[in-house]
Amino acid sequence: MENSDKERIKQLVKARKKAHSFYSKRSKVYQSFVDMEQNTYRDGKLSKKQKELIAIGISVVINCESCMEWHIKQALNDGATRDEIIESVEVGIEMSGGPGTVSARFAMNVLEYYNPG
Amino acid sequence: MENSDKERIKQLVKARKKAHSFYSKRSKVYQSFVDMEQNTYRDGKLSKKQKELIAIGISVVINCESCMEWHIKQALNDGATRDEIIESVEVGIEMSGGPGTVSARFAMNVLEYYNPG
Amino acid sequence: MENSDKERIKQLVKARKKAHSFYSKRSKVYQSFVDMEQNTYRDGKLSKKQKELIAIGISVVINCESCMEWHIKQALNDGATRDEIIESVEVGIEMSGGPGTVSARFAMNVLEYYNPG
Amino acid sequence: MENSDKERIKQLVKARKKAHSFYSKRSKVYQSFVDMEQNTYRDGKLSKKQKELIAIGISVVINCESCMEWHIKQALNDGATRDEIIESVEVGIEMSGGPGTVSARFAMNVLEYYNPG
Amino acid sequence: MENSDKERIKQLVKARKKAHSFYSKRSKVYQSFVDMEQNTYRDGKLSKKQKELIAIGISVVINCESCMEWHIKQALNDGATRDEIIESVEVGIEMSGGPGTVSARFAMNVLEYYNPG
Amino acid sequence: MENSDKERIKQLVKARKKAHSFYSKRSKVYQSFVDMEQNTYRDGKLSKKQKELIAIGISVVINCESCMEWHIKQALNDGATRDEIIESVEVGIEMSGGPGTVSARFAMNVLEYYNPG
Repeated sequence: MENSDKERIKQLVKARKKAHSFYSKRSKVYQSFVDMEQNTYRDGKLSKKQKELIAIGISVVINCESCMEWHIKQALNDGATRDEIIESVEVGIEMSGGPGTVSARFAMNVLEYYNPG
Repeated sequence: MENSDKERIKQLVKARKKAHSFYSKRSKVYQSFVDMEQNTYRDGKLSKKQKELIAIGISVVINCESCMEWHIKQALNDGATRDEIIESVEVGIEMSGGPGTVSARFAMNVLEYYNPG
Repeated sequence: MENSDKERIKQLVKARKKAHSFYSKRSKVYQSFVDMEQNTYRDGKLSKKQKELIAIGISVVINCESCMEWHIKQALNDGATRDEIIESVEVGIEMSGGPGTVSARFAMNVLEYYNPG
Repeated sequence: MENSDKERIKQLVKARKKAHSFYSKRSKVYQSFVDMEQNTYRDGKLSKKQKELIAIGISVVINCESCMEWHIKQALNDGATRDEIIESVEVGIEMSGGPGTVSARFAMNVLEYYNPG
Repeated sequence: MENSDKERIKQLVKARKKAHSFYSKRSKVYQSFVDMEQNTYRDGKLSKKQKELIAIGISVVINCESCMEWHIKQALNDGATRDEIIESVEVGIEMSGGPGTVSARFAMNVLEYYNPG
Repeated sequence: MENSDKERIKQLVKARKKAHSFYSKRSKVYQSFVDMEQNTYRDGKLSKKQKELIAIGISVVINCESCMEWHIKQALNDGATRDEIIESVEVGIEMSGGPGTVSARFAMNVLEYYNPG
């Protein structure tokens, strides 16, 4: 794995933390977004893991690198395997064609970073 | 359910069939897309049902009505419940905010059409 | 104004109401979205009217018809003039080119519907 | 071809004309957009026809029905054949996956409307 | 503020200048885009500042970092306060959910860069 | 040309190769995507070069840097001139406004990298 790829992931994590602190203090809109997020990603009729996998597919389609980093890490924490995550990425590729294969590269890096295998 | 909503869904189904026939005959690109689709939505480490739920979340975010119609119908055929589909829609709302709630209206209509509850 | 254009707007309004009722009962994610919405569109350092105009610009760029219908109606209720709304649409056109001019057509219809001039 | 599909195309044409008149009178931004449009779609190192085919591919990817209607009609006027237009649609499918096949349905209808084959 | 974040902003500024020079010389389309831009962002019924705030909301939703850098800098020059800019970002978050909070991180960096508070 | 711009392009190329190898081994969906890609970009009624130019226009609109890098390189290999590529970028600008001019900056860098003029 390239150092520049590792650096990119570390930067995303740092930026999320800093901005979370910044907006939590200043923005009621952000606070209610956080509520919405917590209401979304918890066990319901679908498990939290299944919801994280849905979010991975979405993140691939919209090419949101920070979203891929977060939801792949969450899915791994919730017990998702590499293959399950790759299959979620595949749905994203089917739903976005060539640009989805570009997103899939970043998803691969995130997998290698959190789950070197 | 409004008649115009039912009509919209029927039109989507008819258009898909007609275009499928049109492009299958004329386009190798379309044929290879169909291969990709079949390779995507089948049981793997994730069940076909789980993959359809991922596709529902994506469809909400990109507001693709025809995609919602198709993947919700598929998910129901694969045994997904109303609540599981609604939770997939919820992930789409979290990942797209207000416009996601607009997509969610069409998803609701599709649910009522195929699974009147 | 064409009858079909009026019908389209009436359908959007009806669909919003029905889905609002549907998801309010069933979805905590939707409820927290509604909180986020209410926290967003109220007077702050920017007036509610100014925020509605921002939302109009966004709605043009993402071509969300229901969002245009809602935020233009809100902006008119908050005292926005036709010209202010058209200038918000213009920012959307600058930020999206040709497809923005397509959205602008629907915005024009909404203006005529709620503010026949 | 379904009557509802023909109606949809006729509505798009009518809406474009009406909005063109509306914004031409009121909006300098719109006027400069029209300049940009005219500077874009004229013979240069690429022919106008080739540029219309590029615009068709883009319209498929962003699923802009009115853009498809316009650019397919233009391309036909510039001498493009059905097969050339279908190959432009194919590039759009490759660049957007499943949702591109949805756009392709509308492109098919536009082809049949202006070039019944 | 991280050095890498400052570098990113400096790169965006440099790239804009270079490309502006490159395309201004070669492209009539680009020149007419610049006209459109100038027709958009000037005082009308809405002030230039209000239009820049609309553009900030749009930039958040489409996650265009260079657009955020430009329009936040412009808004500050036009007298917008930090809080007014943050409220514009909030509208963007409401209109795009989780991915909007990712864009908001970059907006925060731009604010800190031009308006260290 | 800035070193950081050259580095960015080199990273994109490296990432594509690595991910191509990764997914080719593991993903039937990816393999069928590659088939679709090969069926798309070959001489038909339109030349491969013309199709690459369509893909350039699309890449500008969706701001896919890796797609720009790839399709501009391909177009150059297929004999496209700088001016033809710039005119394809122009169609992308017309179809996406301001954000298209941001994409156009990266396209300019790719041109300079592969075709220093």
